Amino acid sequence: MMRQWVLASRPDGLARTSDFAMQESPIPTPDKGQVLLKTQYLGVAPVMLRYMNNGTFFERPLEIGDVMHGRGVGIVVASRNSSFKEGDIVQCKLGWREYALIDDDSYYMPFVMKQTDLPWSYGVSALAMSGFTALLGLRDICNLKKGERVLVSGAAGGVGSQVAFIAKSLGCEQVVGIAGGKKKCHLLTDRLAYDDSIDYKGEDFERQLNSAMPDGINVFFDNVGGEMLDTVIGHVLRRGRIAICGRISEYLKAPDECHRPRNFYLIGLNDLKLEGFFIYNFQERFRDYESTLAHWIRSGEFHPLEDIMHGLEKMPDALIGLYEGTNCGVRVVQIDPDAR
Amino acid sequence: MMRQWVLASRPDGLARTSDFAMQESPIPTPDKGQVLLKTQYLGVAPVMLRYMNNGTFFERPLEIGDVMHGRGVGIVVASRNSSFKEGDIVQCKLGWREYALIDDDSYYMPFVMKQTDLPWSYGVSALAMSGFTALLGLRDICNLKKGERVLVSGAAGGVGSQVAFIAKSLGCEQVVGIAGGKKKCHLLTDRLAYDDSIDYKGEDFERQLNSAMPDGINVFFDNVGGEMLDTVIGHVLRRGRIAICGRISEYLKAPDECHRPRNFYLIGLNDLKLEGFFIYNFQERFRDYESTLAHWIRSGEFHPLEDIMHGLEKMPDALIGLYEGTNCGVRVVQIDPDAR
Repeated sequence: MMRQWVLASRPDGLARTSDFAMQESPIPTPDKGQVLLKTQYLGVAPVMLRYMNNGTFFERPLEIGDVMHGRGVGIVVASRNSSFKEGDIVQCKLGWREYALIDDDSYYMPFVMKQTDLPWSYGVSALAMSGFTALLGLRDICNLKKGERVLVSGAAGGVGSQVAFIAKSLGCEQVVGIAGGKKKCHLLTDRLAYDDSIDYKGEDFERQLNSAMPDGINVFFDNVGGEMLDTVIGHVLRRGRIAICGRISEYLKAPDECHRPRNFYLIGLNDLKLEGFFIYNFQERFRDYESTLAHWIRSGEFHPLEDIMHGLEKMPDALIGLYEGTNCGVRVVQIDPDAR
Repeated sequence: MMRQWVLASRPDGLARTSDFAMQESPIPTPDKGQVLLKTQYLGVAPVMLRYMNNGTFFERPLEIGDVMHGRGVGIVVASRNSSFKEGDIVQCKLGWREYALIDDDSYYMPFVMKQTDLPWSYGVSALAMSGFTALLGLRDICNLKKGERVLVSGAAGGVGSQVAFIAKSLGCEQVVGIAGGKKKCHLLTDRLAYDDSIDYKGEDFERQLNSAMPDGINVFFDNVGGEMLDTVIGHVLRRGRIAICGRISEYLKAPDECHRPRNFYLIGLNDLKLEGFFIYNFQERFRDYESTLAHWIRSGEFHPLEDIMHGLEKMPDALIGLYEGTNCGVRVVQIDPDAR
């Protein structure tokens, strides 16, 4: 038998642990074309809360009793599909469970890891969607150039914790992170590659911003949205670029509660670019992203910071905590105690 | 002697004719390195009103008594600069005057026309900044792909009147224009290449939009900004692109009077791209734009619509009329009665 988490009730606002239920289920057997994976690590992302309610363009809403959606890393323990062999380390949409069957269906978006000498947990962090997103946003969406200055919101979070390393590897002059509280702000400059930090819970956000970046901002990598994004638009230099990666400040809001920015007119006045993007629209680049990031990890430029929790039973807390800001770095849950 | 227009007083809101004064001045003689141009055509653009007040990032504000800034087409009548020879047709920042001296200084941004078998007036319309802007916005900023659907605001205006032809040449499926009043709306479909029109002065803008574009919008080429841009954002399809070319609805407004969009959150939710841009940042592409557009004109795909006024004395009215929406197509003022 194996364990799995299902949706017990739709959250009203932020999820509570009672919205999830743990079940036991038989370990499945692969049919022709199918592969059985044993879950090694699972990731969590803020967007999962939307799967529990209305879904997204890319993921239908869960029904009550459905296994929770989520991506993770598994090891192939049985294969009846020639694209996968026993022992392969595969990242895909496993769901919150200890074993999963997948097939070639595009739904699962399997990606066989090549860089398996590195920790397999990187398959839900630096060599997975969050690391790929950081590289895509900086290099391909914002076209970051050598010598430019970068600001990052949600800088201690899953994607944000990786952005500074990548920005430095791409030759940026200065990278400043925004996070909540002194502890996280210290982390940015001590453990991550940030040159300076801004505490959005501290006094006078704009004064801190002017003080940290007196020469202005070329690129803003935004994970927060809303009021903070609006304020930053007022500080972005002519021809600056803004990657709209996430909007955690507004995921729980109704459309008419979302922020109406006073600085919107500056997009035209200052020739700014704002772009929302989603990593799964760039799958043809994943192999390049994996090898580029692995190279920087091996060369010592990039030290992924993982916030590892242990045990399938921790999954609900791992997700809820993202909204409470408890994580530092990429939140990863180790499911198999023997995982490498 | 020659005539020229100077700034007489700073406009309060929209300019009045009394803000301009006509002067006589001796025809200048070129020094070493200089070129004397005889003005053939002058263009007008909404941004000129800002030169009369606060200036822009690219153009200092005029002082009282300064010759009005403006781009036009001149013929070289005397040259002491090896980059220009007598008879060359040059578009550059001539100012509102019958003759002008220029040199190699980057301020003047001279561009020697190659396609001089076509009407020279195209040097302030289709083969100049407004045509180049239409091509840059659609092809390079919005990356318009074959089969996509395009909406254009200010569609009867200088840039907008050219966008539909270019969109069709680039293979778009449908191009719809927004203009004010029935006369202009008829023009869009009769004389320009628009498939359909939306009258923003008519009833229920959103109903007209839904009716004209039931399959949604891939690319929005915006010359208006403000409330209209906000509304359209709500109709742009996932991964749509918005070229922020102009904001004529807000040029006369203070920052705190500018529109605060209710649909801003959709940029992130729908993976949209918004980009402001300015043609002079792409000068290395001008020669390509000129030959691409001239090819479409010669092949009969592109019929530039010029709104030609005659005589230097008409310049103030030509500019003021842009804000009153009196122009259809690119407004051009013929200065030399013998101009080709």
